Amino acid sequence: MRVIGIDPGLRILGWGVIEVNGSRLTHVENGLCTSSAQDDLGTRLLSLHDQLAAIIARLRPQAAAVEQTFVNRDGAGTLKLGQARGVAMLVPARAGIVVGEYAPNAVKKTIVGVGHAEKHQIAHMIGIHFPGVDLAGPDAADALAIAITHAYHLQSGSRLQQAIARAS
Amino acid sequence: MRVIGIDPGLRILGWGVIEVNGSRLTHVENGLCTSSAQDDLGTRLLSLHDQLAAIIARLRPQAAAVEQTFVNRDGAGTLKLGQARGVAMLVPARAGIVVGEYAPNAVKKTIVGVGHAEKHQIAHMIGIHFPGVDLAGPDAADALAIAITHAYHLQSGSRLQQAIARAS
Repeated sequence: MRVIGIDPGLRILGWGVIEVNGSRLTHVENGLCTSSAQDDLGTRLLSLHDQLAAIIARLRPQAAAVEQTFVNRDGAGTLKLGQARGVAMLVPARAGIVVGEYAPNAVKKTIVGVGHAEKHQIAHMIGIHFPGVDLAGPDAADALAIAITHAYHLQSGSRLQQAIARAS
Repeated sequence: MRVIGIDPGLRILGWGVIEVNGSRLTHVENGLCTSSAQDDLGTRLLSLHDQLAAIIARLRPQAAAVEQTFVNRDGAGTLKLGQARGVAMLVPARAGIVVGEYAPNAVKKTIVGVGHAEKHQIAHMIGIHFPGVDLAGPDAADALAIAITHAYHLQSGSRLQQAIARAS
């Protein structure tokens, strides 16, 4: 199964696609969608939409997860992020993919083992998960971390379902 | 020219379409797009997207305007609003329509004459603009007010262009 992770942002939106085969995770591709601050907001959101839609059409993930954004920023920053996040959630939903959400601490806990890990530890652990993989940037590393988190949660969900099926 | 005004919200998104012929404004239709708090966020944003896209496909506005949202709410509320607003900006942009943005005070100033008008005054003035029109709710009244504001701004823009053309 293919999973796309998305780290939303209006200027830079990171994405990462992984392939899940049983307990084996492999890297497919990662990158950044960007929009220019010189364009009006409608144009920027449309541009992010079209870039992300093209990636989903090309790489055909079956599952998606988006980071639950920090809300303890200033109001204007939160609103901007919300708008980008709305598009990040919408694009996979339009492709018929159910979209999971994970808080940053849940992602850190899955990847690094502790919820309060530093941001650079994420990129470090992604390098260990996928040795030799070029990362388009920190936001792409975060996106891969979200994809891995979703893969682990989906797997524990299916293990749970198997256990229930066996028990019944 | 047809103008759609949009008052974004995740639970209730108001919209209103007006027809502009010179200085004459007529009401076309107004309504609400809604999403259920029981659905996941991706489903809610997709639902708002599809409802709004259907309205734009049916009523074919040539211009659109969205209210610039208050950001002095709590972070979680601002983020929710931002996500809905991202979709509200995206849908007309996907239809090739340039999307204007107006601060609530600018809308109030255009409709009521003062920037600090109470919310109920908007609905009252919309009733005077469009006598006999049924309003789907306060958010639809706000959306019509945004459409009227945009129409006035587009007209003053074109009057300015005409004046420049005449002067040159």
